[in-house]
Amino acid sequence: MAINKNSPFVGRLNAKRNRKNEPVVDDLISGIFRGDKVALARSLTLIESTLPEHFKKAEEIVERCLESKTDSIRIGITGVPGVGKSTFIETLGTLLASQGHKIAVLAVDPTSKRSKGSILGDKTRMETLSKNERVFIRPSPSGQTLGGVARKTRESIILCEAAGYSIILVETVGVGQSETTVHGMVDFFLLLILAGAGDELQGIKRGIFEMADAIAVNKADGTNLKNARIAEIEVSKAMHLYPPKKNGWRPKVLHISAIEDIGVKKIWKIISDYTIAQKLSGSFLEKRKQQNRDWFFESLENQLKSDFYTHKIIQEALEPFVQKVVANEISPFSAARQLIALIKAVPNSRKS
Amino acid sequence: MAINKNSPFVGRLNAKRNRKNEPVVDDLISGIFRGDKVALARSLTLIESTLPEHFKKAEEIVERCLESKTDSIRIGITGVPGVGKSTFIETLGTLLASQGHKIAVLAVDPTSKRSKGSILGDKTRMETLSKNERVFIRPSPSGQTLGGVARKTRESIILCEAAGYSIILVETVGVGQSETTVHGMVDFFLLLILAGAGDELQGIKRGIFEMADAIAVNKADGTNLKNARIAEIEVSKAMHLYPPKKNGWRPKVLHISAIEDIGVKKIWKIISDYTIAQKLSGSFLEKRKQQNRDWFFESLENQLKSDFYTHKIIQEALEPFVQKVVANEISPFSAARQLIALIKAVPNSRKS
Repeated sequence: MAINKNSPFVGRLNAKRNRKNEPVVDDLISGIFRGDKVALARSLTLIESTLPEHFKKAEEIVERCLESKTDSIRIGITGVPGVGKSTFIETLGTLLASQGHKIAVLAVDPTSKRSKGSILGDKTRMETLSKNERVFIRPSPSGQTLGGVARKTRESIILCEAAGYSIILVETVGVGQSETTVHGMVDFFLLLILAGAGDELQGIKRGIFEMADAIAVNKADGTNLKNARIAEIEVSKAMHLYPPKKNGWRPKVLHISAIEDIGVKKIWKIISDYTIAQKLSGSFLEKRKQQNRDWFFESLENQLKSDFYTHKIIQEALEPFVQKVVANEISPFSAARQLIALIKAVPNSRKS
Repeated sequence: MAINKNSPFVGRLNAKRNRKNEPVVDDLISGIFRGDKVALARSLTLIESTLPEHFKKAEEIVERCLESKTDSIRIGITGVPGVGKSTFIETLGTLLASQGHKIAVLAVDPTSKRSKGSILGDKTRMETLSKNERVFIRPSPSGQTLGGVARKTRESIILCEAAGYSIILVETVGVGQSETTVHGMVDFFLLLILAGAGDELQGIKRGIFEMADAIAVNKADGTNLKNARIAEIEVSKAMHLYPPKKNGWRPKVLHISAIEDIGVKKIWKIISDYTIAQKLSGSFLEKRKQQNRDWFFESLENQLKSDFYTHKIIQEALEPFVQKVVANEISPFSAARQLIALIKAVPNSRKS
């Protein structure tokens, strides 16, 4: 469905607001299902909100969007800053949009601050793409921990899919834990690297290579082409040392130039081949089910821990225990047992 | 202190038992401090016990042993079954004992069953070593999960150190998660591998190479020597692709033959050099403090989760929620929130 900012729907959305001047959930949901970008953006804002009064609304929107079973491919894109992720997304996104696909671009960047503008906040970095009617770009939720960003990005994916975006590109900043997090929410994980001084894996966090379904040596253009080709061979060799993935996929290595549009079509071909093969074997759906399961338990245990660590008694008692443990005055196991016993001992919180 | 099975202490230990015919904790502790193997073994049995009435005694012993600040080096040894870990430990242990060191050998093997005999249960595999007066060998605690084995092994290390064993060798079975667990309880982590068909990293769990402080290509003898040397070069190259560790250490790669005692002295030299350098820089103590801290939080969170998942209400409600999450009927986050709310809603367990 084409997006029209002057559509009657947008007017209706603006007209029907509750007392607090916030849009009605039902309107947002039907807006999403119509593919309205404004309704989608407002819903994402609700999801990203840290105000408790928004939680219920956000939850309702997510639940309703989950009902729309859409066919999508979720692609994670990572690489160190400066590797050319934005240019790559711009080139790939433009290609896919020209083929008729609807593309949503999300970012996972726990370091972004609203004031500074997040990694995708500066839309001039994806100037052409951001103007494309078939493309929806959303910066990373700001002012959040990685866990918060992850949760919100996962829910954002659901909403974008319900709005008809069938290709979801999730960009990660490529530092810290965000790659692992993004890897856990996508179907295909692409790593961009640069040709270095013969030591191609330097500076990239351990374990990232093992998660990649494809590795592209970017900026393989001009005088850099030769080095990029050497890097491609080196990395291919290193990747070959690892056993194949559980789903039988052998990660592909290639050189590309996002800026000169070399090899980007080839990457899309790899992703398409991967998707077809994984869907045929059933691994595609299996992976998504497993991801849902993982998110559930992760979410459950995070909530449990958060409830525990924010408990008044624990907040007072924790640090003295940590100090005793570090100083070898008490075994870590006794300390844990004693600390938990503190809560259990409170009369009003006895267990059923 | 030399161990004498006919010492007056052992007689006293046997004489003074409580009504349940169990040795008195004070006697066990003073036995450990005297370096008595029988007292040590009996204390370890208490620690490995799953009987609740033993927990308090075990805890008291661990606490008291923690008080004895000893100087020790904890070495983790891993590698796939058949790589020659037992032979290596036999050769290294015999060398170290001949230099006057006291060595304790522990194992982390969550798969071991008492009936089958654990990985070290069959002492004939370390025949010479097990007869050495300066050596104490203890099989993996049986009938336990990895978490249970890990906890018990960590506490066993404390007791062995209090008994005067200054070199602790912790063997892992080299399958599943046990390597990561052992890595978190030792100062130095050694990976044994075999020369393969030019593809040296095959069959070894991803991430193990990254944890290793040294990698030894074992069975570098006879017609296998050439292949072992090639493997050494290949692995050196692959290791070089990773950035150095936080403590500045560059993992060493070498070829050895445990059975022909080639390269084993060299490994001990590497471990000694490592220890000296790490102690000088302060990284050695820092790592141990960090490990204590990690064990504490790990232990704390495991206990929290265990309390939660064994709660009657949760045991009944969990699976239906999992199914809904997997089927995309509910978002993982809402499901987690709703599940935790079930416990909070119970009148008698309201939070303080």
